[in-house]
Amino acid sequence: MADQSAPAGQSAENLPERPKEGAAAAPEGEKGPSKAALKKAQKEKEKAEKAAKRKAEEDAQRAAAAANDVSKNDYGELPVLSDAEPTGIPRVSLAELSKKYADTSSMDESGGPEVVFRAIVENARNQSAKLSFLLLGQSGENVQAVVAESPSLSRSMVKFCGSISTESVVVVHGVVKKPKENVKSATVGHLEIHVKKLFVECKADSMLPLQVADAERPIPAEGEEEKEEEGRPIVTLNTRLNNRIIDLRARHNRAIFKIKHGVTQLFREFLESKDFVGVQTPKLLGSASEGGANVFEVKYFDRKAYLAQSPQLYKQMLIAARMEKVYEVGPVFRAENSNTARHLTEFTGLDLEMEFSEHYHEVVELLEGLMLFILNGLKERYGKETDLIRSIYHVEEFKLPEVGKTVRIPFSEGIQMLRDDGVEVGDFDDLSTPDEKRLGRLVLEKYNTDFYILDKYPLAIRPFYTMPAPDSPAFDSSSKDPNGGYSNSYDFFMRGQEIMSGAQRIHNADFLVKRMKEHVTPVDPEAPGLKDYVDGFRYGCPPHAGGGIGLERIVMLWLGLPNVRLGSLFPRDPGRLAP
Amino acid sequence: MADQSAPAGQSAENLPERPKEGAAAAPEGEKGPSKAALKKAQKEKEKAEKAAKRKAEEDAQRAAAAANDVSKNDYGELPVLSDAEPTGIPRVSLAELSKKYADTSSMDESGGPEVVFRAIVENARNQSAKLSFLLLGQSGENVQAVVAESPSLSRSMVKFCGSISTESVVVVHGVVKKPKENVKSATVGHLEIHVKKLFVECKADSMLPLQVADAERPIPAEGEEEKEEEGRPIVTLNTRLNNRIIDLRARHNRAIFKIKHGVTQLFREFLESKDFVGVQTPKLLGSASEGGANVFEVKYFDRKAYLAQSPQLYKQMLIAARMEKVYEVGPVFRAENSNTARHLTEFTGLDLEMEFSEHYHEVVELLEGLMLFILNGLKERYGKETDLIRSIYHVEEFKLPEVGKTVRIPFSEGIQMLRDDGVEVGDFDDLSTPDEKRLGRLVLEKYNTDFYILDKYPLAIRPFYTMPAPDSPAFDSSSKDPNGGYSNSYDFFMRGQEIMSGAQRIHNADFLVKRMKEHVTPVDPEAPGLKDYVDGFRYGCPPHAGGGIGLERIVMLWLGLPNVRLGSLFPRDPGRLAP
Repeated sequence: MADQSAPAGQSAENLPERPKEGAAAAPEGEKGPSKAALKKAQKEKEKAEKAAKRKAEEDAQRAAAAANDVSKNDYGELPVLSDAEPTGIPRVSLAELSKKYADTSSMDESGGPEVVFRAIVENARNQSAKLSFLLLGQSGENVQAVVAESPSLSRSMVKFCGSISTESVVVVHGVVKKPKENVKSATVGHLEIHVKKLFVECKADSMLPLQVADAERPIPAEGEEEKEEEGRPIVTLNTRLNNRIIDLRARHNRAIFKIKHGVTQLFREFLESKDFVGVQTPKLLGSASEGGANVFEVKYFDRKAYLAQSPQLYKQMLIAARMEKVYEVGPVFRAENSNTARHLTEFTGLDLEMEFSEHYHEVVELLEGLMLFILNGLKERYGKETDLIRSIYHVEEFKLPEVGKTVRIPFSEGIQMLRDDGVEVGDFDDLSTPDEKRLGRLVLEKYNTDFYILDKYPLAIRPFYTMPAPDSPAFDSSSKDPNGGYSNSYDFFMRGQEIMSGAQRIHNADFLVKRMKEHVTPVDPEAPGLKDYVDGFRYGCPPHAGGGIGLERIVMLWLGLPNVRLGSLFPRDPGRLAP
Repeated sequence: MADQSAPAGQSAENLPERPKEGAAAAPEGEKGPSKAALKKAQKEKEKAEKAAKRKAEEDAQRAAAAANDVSKNDYGELPVLSDAEPTGIPRVSLAELSKKYADTSSMDESGGPEVVFRAIVENARNQSAKLSFLLLGQSGENVQAVVAESPSLSRSMVKFCGSISTESVVVVHGVVKKPKENVKSATVGHLEIHVKKLFVECKADSMLPLQVADAERPIPAEGEEEKEEEGRPIVTLNTRLNNRIIDLRARHNRAIFKIKHGVTQLFREFLESKDFVGVQTPKLLGSASEGGANVFEVKYFDRKAYLAQSPQLYKQMLIAARMEKVYEVGPVFRAENSNTARHLTEFTGLDLEMEFSEHYHEVVELLEGLMLFILNGLKERYGKETDLIRSIYHVEEFKLPEVGKTVRIPFSEGIQMLRDDGVEVGDFDDLSTPDEKRLGRLVLEKYNTDFYILDKYPLAIRPFYTMPAPDSPAFDSSSKDPNGGYSNSYDFFMRGQEIMSGAQRIHNADFLVKRMKEHVTPVDPEAPGLKDYVDGFRYGCPPHAGGGIGLERIVMLWLGLPNVRLGSLFPRDPGRLAP
């Protein structure tokens, strides 16, 4: 058994010592050591000998104590690596245990069986020399453990267990019992573990830069400084992100990333059921094809490369390559120097592109279906996680539209709604973020939904590859305003913020070239990176449309989180590249 | 109906003209035009007037012909965008049609119903003035279409249809009939479409830089030049990749990327069934944490960033953050100046990391299960695609191990097998690629499997975060050779080539620091990017292990493709950043 090979007591003989500063520094090269170095080495040798002697004495003392310790094989720190054969004893989960012993009415004094499990020490205290308590966490659940002196359990072991530093990882062997009364501080409060053996697998530093308990509170509102509340500090987002490994241990953070995973799962599930093929398009590009601004430059051997700002051109090239329906889940990079609560320099794009038969609204319908599948799926599958997060960030529940009643409003109607509400805005103006949020509130009031679609955006504010609306002057070669009118494009909104942008794309090479030249921000169709793209349409390409969703934004807006960074494991912004 | 709005004949009035060279060039600035420019403008004006006159005459002629054309509303080029209401007529797929009319014995002269579908013109020819044939492709299937003159179908229409350029996209209305004899050149050879209407949605250039038929042949073997075979050129990989949009239209390429998608699906399916959470770790890093070589540098606002060479450190940090089991599918970047058939500078990593209870072999077992699930899944789900590809690249079928008989060999045994075969190799030498392939052949001979695992690699040839084997001198602080002995690490092989590398990782911060310093290539534990990583283990982290799989390599080796580039939609290597 692995634990029989464990050393007794606090001794950590098999743990490697922390190397002395400089002792294992970079090799000094081939030249011989200097006199000073020799002297230093001599001194260090003496020091090491003294330390060894002291250690030997301490070891002897401990060995003597250990010899008398009835529990000597039942506790202690495990070595970094055991060479013992695995015991094969199955480990239990607290969640299973909780369910299995939901009813403890028939349980007598001797309790249930002995179980083995790994846990995190959330708290440990010595109640007395004979008794200590631990709060043991595992996968979001926790349970109280009792270490009580007995003929077979020594005081040394009681003391050891009650002194383990918070966040240490332990392996516990214990008997499941019914506590005298429910333990309020534990999620598995109707059970208690009476410890038989307890080993520390990985000891946590006693001073942590951030307490998990502090990470489990909401971040301060925007603009607010770190402050105290109920005797505990409210820790700023920056401090949390600097110590993200501990921050992520907060239960609501675990829930956020389960939900994020859920969004990608639902996204793929829906699209794969409709025969979409998942693809990987290149992130390293030979040219800044989507426009020179906001693109990161990469040193690529002896030349320059650029990071993809979206899979846009490539997913269209795959339609031209006859792949018919494609999706991608992958990183997108934006060199935007925006330090807002809703911008990241690296985020996850959920992208798709597809042929359609007759009208781009076929694609809008599919996208509507996709978004409702995701949002309803989150509601059905992640209710527990959503509730947990809402207990910390108190935001109104997300209002989904009634089945079959998705709200799709022409852009022009959106403008009218804003005007009726007193906003001054031109017919073809792009909407500011405050106006978007305001329109979101107006839509919520009128239609009782936090999710809606704005269709037919002005052509002038969309990228060059956007298909103009059929009545657009772009199709009239005599027009003096080819960028006027509307386009076959759309944005999707959650709580008044954009989460997806999409459009029908131009699939005719000649018309595309015309649009590239006459666009508000003209691009050169012959530029490297764009020529291949344009040529793709010269090889015959069906009409197609698609969209790109910001994954972190869906997470943020579904949950009503105050900052998009909370939806990224290790967020990147102009000021942050670590951890 | 949309097609009623279609223009008749070859006329393309609604198609935008290709802009004249220079006509829409960059604005010339504010200064007035020169005399020469005025003269040039006058000349161009005259030229344009002449052209307009000529066009008007031609249009009049066509209009006269069209007025007499009984089929005038039944064929022609569609405008880039129709403003007609969608017809809502369902489109059929050739595959469905083939199944639905598998038995044509009861079909009489009048044939089946009229169907509508989109197709690619794979071939078109005018047999006579009264009859033309097309080979129409759709999603890997194709069918013959007949356009025959009749009282309701004009000779102009026959001529138009027989002259459509290859690779053009068309919409066809036609009657399903039984051909006099099976059409050998078509996959749906037992049916024939008698065309009623045919519209070109997107015309392909008549001169394509690569023929799909040529892309459907294998690439020349390594080192071979482009050559002729059976009257057709064998086109080099470079030419194909330069024209990848056409190249990808080859049926076996479509199959390759279906299989690639299948691998990611199977990977996720297996891991999600075991409660792994999918994650996204950052690709932009503040420092070259995994070592300075082979890393791409990025200009990040006013400082430098680096592209992640793997999610290694981050997935471990997520284990330290208590995420327990994580996986990631994402791009990895390697600035390796290797121009071999098995290296890419950007590829897709299938990564995972997980806690284990007692021994890292728990993880090896899971990884074995994962790989067999993927490979058996490919065999079961993608037999048709695999066969298609093997009809082009004639490679032996992949030999899977018998159920429950996965081959896991200690590295030392692998060395012995090579020595017994006459190879001179040291106990702790890293295996060269030829030796790996040779060992693969030896394993295949001995165990009859193309998939196997090499376990317990020498410590010295693995990264600093690798856990040494229990008997390694790394645990002996008095050892003079701390990099000697073996480690708890493993590689997985397919057809003698590595597809996954993994190990137990060091979860103890102090021991990790020691290993970082004494590693063959020492790294500084205090370096930015590494400190956060090391600190993660100071906050308490359970024992864990994992692995990273190269997605394109699995695809290549499963199918026996001669070059890893064939497994990437738009491959990147030191010389290639486009398309």
